[in-house]
Amino acid sequence: MDKSHLRNSITNAAHRNPALVIKNARVVNVFTDEIVEADVAVDGGIVLGVGKYSCANEIDAKGAYLCPGLIDGHVHIESSMAHPARFADVVLSKGTTAVIADPHEIANVCGTNGIYYMLGETEWIPLSVFMMLPSCVPATSFETSGAKITARDMEPFMSHKRVIGLGEVMDYVAATTPNGGMLEKLHLFRKLPIDGHAPMLTGDALNAYCVAGPRTDHECSSYEEVLEKVRAGMRIHLRLGSATHGIEEIMRKIAENGLPTRRMMVCTDDKHLEDIRREGHINYILKRAVANGIPAIDAIKMATINVAENYRLKGYGAIAPGCRADMVLFKDLVDFEPITVFTNGRVFVPGDESAPTRDPDIYNSVHLAPRRPDCLDLPVSGKMPILRLVPNELITELDTEEVPSENGLFRPANGLVKIAVFERHHASGRIGLGIMRGMPIRNGAIATTVGHDSHNLIAAGDNDRDMLLAVDALEACGGGYVVVSEGKVLAKLALPIAGLMSDLPVDRIIAAQKQMLAAAESIGVKSGTDPFITLSFIALPVIPSVRITDLGMFDVTKMALIAESDVN
Amino acid sequence: MDKSHLRNSITNAAHRNPALVIKNARVVNVFTDEIVEADVAVDGGIVLGVGKYSCANEIDAKGAYLCPGLIDGHVHIESSMAHPARFADVVLSKGTTAVIADPHEIANVCGTNGIYYMLGETEWIPLSVFMMLPSCVPATSFETSGAKITARDMEPFMSHKRVIGLGEVMDYVAATTPNGGMLEKLHLFRKLPIDGHAPMLTGDALNAYCVAGPRTDHECSSYEEVLEKVRAGMRIHLRLGSATHGIEEIMRKIAENGLPTRRMMVCTDDKHLEDIRREGHINYILKRAVANGIPAIDAIKMATINVAENYRLKGYGAIAPGCRADMVLFKDLVDFEPITVFTNGRVFVPGDESAPTRDPDIYNSVHLAPRRPDCLDLPVSGKMPILRLVPNELITELDTEEVPSENGLFRPANGLVKIAVFERHHASGRIGLGIMRGMPIRNGAIATTVGHDSHNLIAAGDNDRDMLLAVDALEACGGGYVVVSEGKVLAKLALPIAGLMSDLPVDRIIAAQKQMLAAAESIGVKSGTDPFITLSFIALPVIPSVRITDLGMFDVTKMALIAESDVN
Repeated sequence: MDKSHLRNSITNAAHRNPALVIKNARVVNVFTDEIVEADVAVDGGIVLGVGKYSCANEIDAKGAYLCPGLIDGHVHIESSMAHPARFADVVLSKGTTAVIADPHEIANVCGTNGIYYMLGETEWIPLSVFMMLPSCVPATSFETSGAKITARDMEPFMSHKRVIGLGEVMDYVAATTPNGGMLEKLHLFRKLPIDGHAPMLTGDALNAYCVAGPRTDHECSSYEEVLEKVRAGMRIHLRLGSATHGIEEIMRKIAENGLPTRRMMVCTDDKHLEDIRREGHINYILKRAVANGIPAIDAIKMATINVAENYRLKGYGAIAPGCRADMVLFKDLVDFEPITVFTNGRVFVPGDESAPTRDPDIYNSVHLAPRRPDCLDLPVSGKMPILRLVPNELITELDTEEVPSENGLFRPANGLVKIAVFERHHASGRIGLGIMRGMPIRNGAIATTVGHDSHNLIAAGDNDRDMLLAVDALEACGGGYVVVSEGKVLAKLALPIAGLMSDLPVDRIIAAQKQMLAAAESIGVKSGTDPFITLSFIALPVIPSVRITDLGMFDVTKMALIAESDVN
Repeated sequence: MDKSHLRNSITNAAHRNPALVIKNARVVNVFTDEIVEADVAVDGGIVLGVGKYSCANEIDAKGAYLCPGLIDGHVHIESSMAHPARFADVVLSKGTTAVIADPHEIANVCGTNGIYYMLGETEWIPLSVFMMLPSCVPATSFETSGAKITARDMEPFMSHKRVIGLGEVMDYVAATTPNGGMLEKLHLFRKLPIDGHAPMLTGDALNAYCVAGPRTDHECSSYEEVLEKVRAGMRIHLRLGSATHGIEEIMRKIAENGLPTRRMMVCTDDKHLEDIRREGHINYILKRAVANGIPAIDAIKMATINVAENYRLKGYGAIAPGCRADMVLFKDLVDFEPITVFTNGRVFVPGDESAPTRDPDIYNSVHLAPRRPDCLDLPVSGKMPILRLVPNELITELDTEEVPSENGLFRPANGLVKIAVFERHHASGRIGLGIMRGMPIRNGAIATTVGHDSHNLIAAGDNDRDMLLAVDALEACGGGYVVVSEGKVLAKLALPIAGLMSDLPVDRIIAAQKQMLAAAESIGVKSGTDPFITLSFIALPVIPSVRITDLGMFDVTKMALIAESDVN
């Protein structure tokens, strides 16, 4: 807001000169916990006042509930696979007018260029996008990321008006046994919001983590964990995305125990476009919170003023003079179905999003060395480590057994497939190879460049030719998802933006995803599971028990790469 | 906190290695509203954890209540008349471990030098002093201050770690009809905390004021005013200082109506040293809040986490791992009498304060032109404007009447005395002269360099010789308070620090104040009134109805100097 804008807003408030009046609303006041029947006057993107107003441009709320625009307290936009402007379009339709985004995924691929890209692409869109700088790039030292971001790299971002803190400190080991790099970051941000990510952390380790600086957590899996963390001064994001469970029981216990909700926020973290379209976004979390006994006003505060206060967003999270006119009109405070969404003082109209910028640094992120035909040869002798998928879970188990072989090389059979992680950032030619059970691909391969958190290229299949064809296909389109069978590409979703995001409209992304699933089913992956999500997490060396990175098979329980001697 | 300090604190939390343990406390948890029986581990000025701890250095709380250190949400340290280190000593004894200070008074005398001085003098003291930059220097254009502070002057302070926002915007007219200078300041601080000061402001003007940026108010005189301002998004400081009334009824109504207290803070604004010594400081406000029906935990939050959140003081206002170990042990949560005060992890020991720095820019603030013997001649003809004091109030009334004269000049008699405001910053020689009723001085004069807000030298008396002697005495000692009679100085309190603060120990300041009152009584000022406070506010051109500045008599209702033609 420049000076003349500020002056005009002040003057228009003093002289009752709005550009838009929302008449006859039940206005939710997050400061007094009241619902007030009133009109809301808006001008220049700002609320001028709540009271009796009229002007030439009126919208009749007809007694519906006018809430502050909802804020997602923690989200990775990249995981939607849509360009930020298109992601914005989908969530705005559900009443989410601001997000606290952590561009952790694109930063792991493109480094600070990725952060600049996300800031640039969100500068002029109707969704307010605030950024927490990714704290863990690379996420671990057991894989090769596209970039490394140090505290010094972060400094230039700190004066950016939408950069507000340090993103989720997933590496709680580094935070609590402070090493050079993480300590630098924690120190740099010590007076600003720092997000935590500390599943199951308790007792002395939790205390040390709090001393280190993180003051939020979105990973709680029980009410007891919530209680301990709130007592220790953390604010809790109640997370309800695509792959999260257990939060509703936590909500119920919060309500039952009367735990103050002032320290609670809500977030999606990762939620698929189709799920957002179908059930909602933050408004869906409010619906579930109310269904589980949390009073509607408290639920709304978790998605508005509580988030704004935590992240120091002055003028967000409330409907009051001087606040940004981000609002959503709900039919009721039970289902939270939006009637009209206002952003920056205007009625939000879906489908008006801007086109992606084709930044060559971001669009050319797949850098593979040439492959030799024998590059996937996997010599076997004696027992081999097997990565066994657990149905409907992200966790895996480590088995060791003898496997089928031919000429001393692994030969996929009996439900065992080959899995390969190609380092795809620096064209090093490095390939981590392993054996997987639980994704019984027949006569084909699937592959992706979305592979948390370093986003190397992951391919799985029962024959090397299809696997290599899948890699070729992804290399050609700048990354994405692909299904190949018998020398042919069956389905493909190009994700040219860092190998993570599509530049297509949302409808086409969702359609492509459905084709991908059908193609995967045709080569033996059973209906009802999403092999692409499974693959995307197969390289994340923080989820038990076993992973595979470009450096090889990795035992998460020992935090070490698996050597041949470990299994024989 | 430097990096090695941070690392040590993290490590000591992880390994349960405290330097001090407070055993067997009832720990007030402002996050969960619980009171938990526990030990508190402290090291390096930081709370490491709350639980079961022991170490070589233990303090047994014996079941007393351990609260976060109390925070005064808005105070002018200068008005205590003590040097900041000595002010700190007094308030720390009452459990106040941090203050949000607005160095408005010294800034009006010394400009940015005054702010640097206050920052410097509070750098190493055990009280945490955060600064809001004074927004109104000068306070009005109807008087001559020692300095003018523009937005550009403020910019260098914004990177100071203890400068946290813009101080009370008293000039609500400038804020709501935004002019160049105030608009610059509001724009500069638009994303940071801005304190308001808006007595009785309501409706459209209040809305415009909120749009302008201030988000707190400490001037509410009724519950209805509180409610309107909270609804509009302001946080309210419940102020209980030396000269404030009506706040207890507001507290009672807050409790009765169940108005959420999350948006409430407490402050003293101005409270005399003797009053603090006698009844308490922030702890006294908590006592009155509880006596008026506000739950103790809510009252405590008003003085701790609510203030810390509003002013973005990460690590303040709570007892939790990573928070600054500012704590106070109370016998009960009714009287709030402190047993032990901890600041920065140590037991506070009174009387250990540092000596004032004799900065020559600050210590030589009284710059008067030489006085001619006839400089106080006040020609009179016809009716004259009279400033009539209202007993026990700061407001005044404007009378007009014929007054005693001799050779065409005013001759004090019949309870009328002469009052003179000497411009004392720039040696301009300018003197504003007037006639006052209600302070019946006989055979003498009293004078002060404490004169809100420009702090010119104000003298009142019934003869010019004593008035001029009083001026000479204050000039000689660098400012202060003085009582003169029949050519002799009866009592004096030197305030050499900007003409506002003593560099004496607190006991001696209080003793001198008592002598001053006795001396004033001896020249006719009746017991029970404090003529020095009255004089100090006589030049403040924002309190109705009539004031006097170095520019002359001033009609506050018309916001204009009084011309001869106005009364005849």
